Amino acid sequence: MATLITLLTDFGVADSYVGEVKGVLLSQVHGVALVDISHQVPPGDVRAGQYILSRTWHRFPQGAVHFAVIDPGVGTARRALAVQAAGHFFVAPDNGLLSFLPADAHWVALPVPAGASPTFHARDVFAPAAGQLALGAALAHLGHAITDPYLSPLPSPRHDGAAVVGEVIYVDRFGTLVSNIPGDQVEPGVRIKVAGTEIGTLARTFGDVGRGQLVTFVGSGGTVEIAVRDGSAARLLGVGVGAEVRA
Amino acid sequence: MATLITLLTDFGVADSYVGEVKGVLLSQVHGVALVDISHQVPPGDVRAGQYILSRTWHRFPQGAVHFAVIDPGVGTARRALAVQAAGHFFVAPDNGLLSFLPADAHWVALPVPAGASPTFHARDVFAPAAGQLALGAALAHLGHAITDPYLSPLPSPRHDGAAVVGEVIYVDRFGTLVSNIPGDQVEPGVRIKVAGTEIGTLARTFGDVGRGQLVTFVGSGGTVEIAVRDGSAARLLGVGVGAEVRA
Amino acid sequence: MATLITLLTDFGVADSYVGEVKGVLLSQVHGVALVDISHQVPPGDVRAGQYILSRTWHRFPQGAVHFAVIDPGVGTARRALAVQAAGHFFVAPDNGLLSFLPADAHWVALPVPAGASPTFHARDVFAPAAGQLALGAALAHLGHAITDPYLSPLPSPRHDGAAVVGEVIYVDRFGTLVSNIPGDQVEPGVRIKVAGTEIGTLARTFGDVGRGQLVTFVGSGGTVEIAVRDGSAARLLGVGVGAEVRA
Repeated sequence: MATLITLLTDFGVADSYVGEVKGVLLSQVHGVALVDISHQVPPGDVRAGQYILSRTWHRFPQGAVHFAVIDPGVGTARRALAVQAAGHFFVAPDNGLLSFLPADAHWVALPVPAGASPTFHARDVFAPAAGQLALGAALAHLGHAITDPYLSPLPSPRHDGAAVVGEVIYVDRFGTLVSNIPGDQVEPGVRIKVAGTEIGTLARTFGDVGRGQLVTFVGSGGTVEIAVRDGSAARLLGVGVGAEVRA
Repeated sequence: MATLITLLTDFGVADSYVGEVKGVLLSQVHGVALVDISHQVPPGDVRAGQYILSRTWHRFPQGAVHFAVIDPGVGTARRALAVQAAGHFFVAPDNGLLSFLPADAHWVALPVPAGASPTFHARDVFAPAAGQLALGAALAHLGHAITDPYLSPLPSPRHDGAAVVGEVIYVDRFGTLVSNIPGDQVEPGVRIKVAGTEIGTLARTFGDVGRGQLVTFVGSGGTVEIAVRDGSAARLLGVGVGAEVRA
Repeated sequence: MATLITLLTDFGVADSYVGEVKGVLLSQVHGVALVDISHQVPPGDVRAGQYILSRTWHRFPQGAVHFAVIDPGVGTARRALAVQAAGHFFVAPDNGLLSFLPADAHWVALPVPAGASPTFHARDVFAPAAGQLALGAALAHLGHAITDPYLSPLPSPRHDGAAVVGEVIYVDRFGTLVSNIPGDQVEPGVRIKVAGTEIGTLARTFGDVGRGQLVTFVGSGGTVEIAVRDGSAARLLGVGVGAEVRA
């Protein structure tokens, strides 16, 4: 039996929604540990949710069930999915949120129970499915297998001569710009540029520059990041997701 | 022994207050699971707290203890209560926060221990009482029975000829207006009006209209809601709690 | 084995960082209870973090491990610490965050594992150390003993004739000004002043004054506080941390 379920949503924590989901899970799976990843994904921002979950799921022990519901299409024809991959389980809408999963993942489409609220599948479709997985139900038991999940992976960098050209794929709470350029693809001595502004060569960490200074380094997700020490690179440079990063 | 305690407060999560309460609970009841409903109720908004808790408590398993402290009158003559109802337990100030409980609930008034901080009954009165309930103490053991809790239920809709007239009782993080009109009281084909603006007939979900469009449907709490797809109905219509809803 | 780890950071809850830390902890210590103190400490505000943790840690049962990472110097030469004090364990950067600990605390400096991200010691240095402590490892096992941690305790009040002169050391979410003047050092009948404005004599609680009125009382941390009932003293008085408080 799984001992833990992680939760990622865009519900915020001010309303009753997260509490209702947790009540359903705990009623179904007594004693299961619930671990909040975040409920502060910007409303409907499937791409930000994908980035966050892609960084976190593999940190948890095998057998964990990951409940991920950023679902602007709730109640429409979009499918509801449960997935098994690399010893982990996932439930999520079929909108690209799980595009980071390996190619050998197993996917099933969940039935929508009679009486499910068309605006709250998190509580009435995804939570019961996550609970069944946590109780040890086989994936195949939950729905019919599908092989065509909607996939919308985060963009990959490309090569332009000797340069690597990527983009900002996430901006964190500190205003740090996270790019999709793997640190190990950056040649030593190369100067990083963001939206045309030259930042400099790769440093190690924030403290390598003075307060308020721009700095670039290989971030904790393994890709090039651009930050301002004790400040916000997003605000200073006036750029966000999609801005070109060149290395 | 209860294995879980839910928490609902207006303390926010930036200060030490929630942590102090959790420390008291975990010191008293080793291994109890603590589940946050929300700590983001607007400061002192007993009515919003009541709405949130009324939607969530029954989703949890029987035996759960619900710690609910939105308490603008902390330290004054208002009583501190513990309650048993429908197999669940509650601790809360006597200010109407639990007005949704069934008529056969059992209520006791809690003594205030010597040395309790007059501004932090959550930590010094309610948490110890919740801990005792979680440890299996009988309700009657905690205080003296009372039969006159202060009740201030959320308003009910009324009939006006063939129409049902209610009001907005909650606005969620997405700006969706939640009314008190039960979906099953709305005749087919009736057009919903909010503060004089006609919204339309009941749809199923957000996705039934275009982005930025107003939509009305029976929400996940069972009552009529008015929303804007990928937007905020509260902002678009400029209305909030108390606005008339007509069906 | 420790059954619980508390977490205090300035990471916010919108990004993946807290989730990654929790994943590492739960992978290392199956079944450990994780308790959030706060992740909303203002970025880099070591002093606010120190105040919050000083109020909370001793509320938890002995054996608890407290993970406290507000770490503007991450990846620089500042040391990473693990500490044992009063039957509790702590991991934190050596920047003064734990200055409230008793003089007989035992401190060790943690090695930085090869491959640790220079910008995410929380995940790669502090979480593994907290996990080892939770699994029962001896403190001495984790690093080499040190006796010179960087200490930067919160300021103490001084006497000025018959008066006690302190300062605001924290402002909470409600805008309440928390001073460092112990309530038991205030003579009966003394009028409290903040930044030159006379507030009045000590009341018991908010409800002792009308809505919107200033009030001063001995707060739940044992020191003099200045508040506005149903309002913000910080905003009304236009003062914050460091403002003089006179009793």
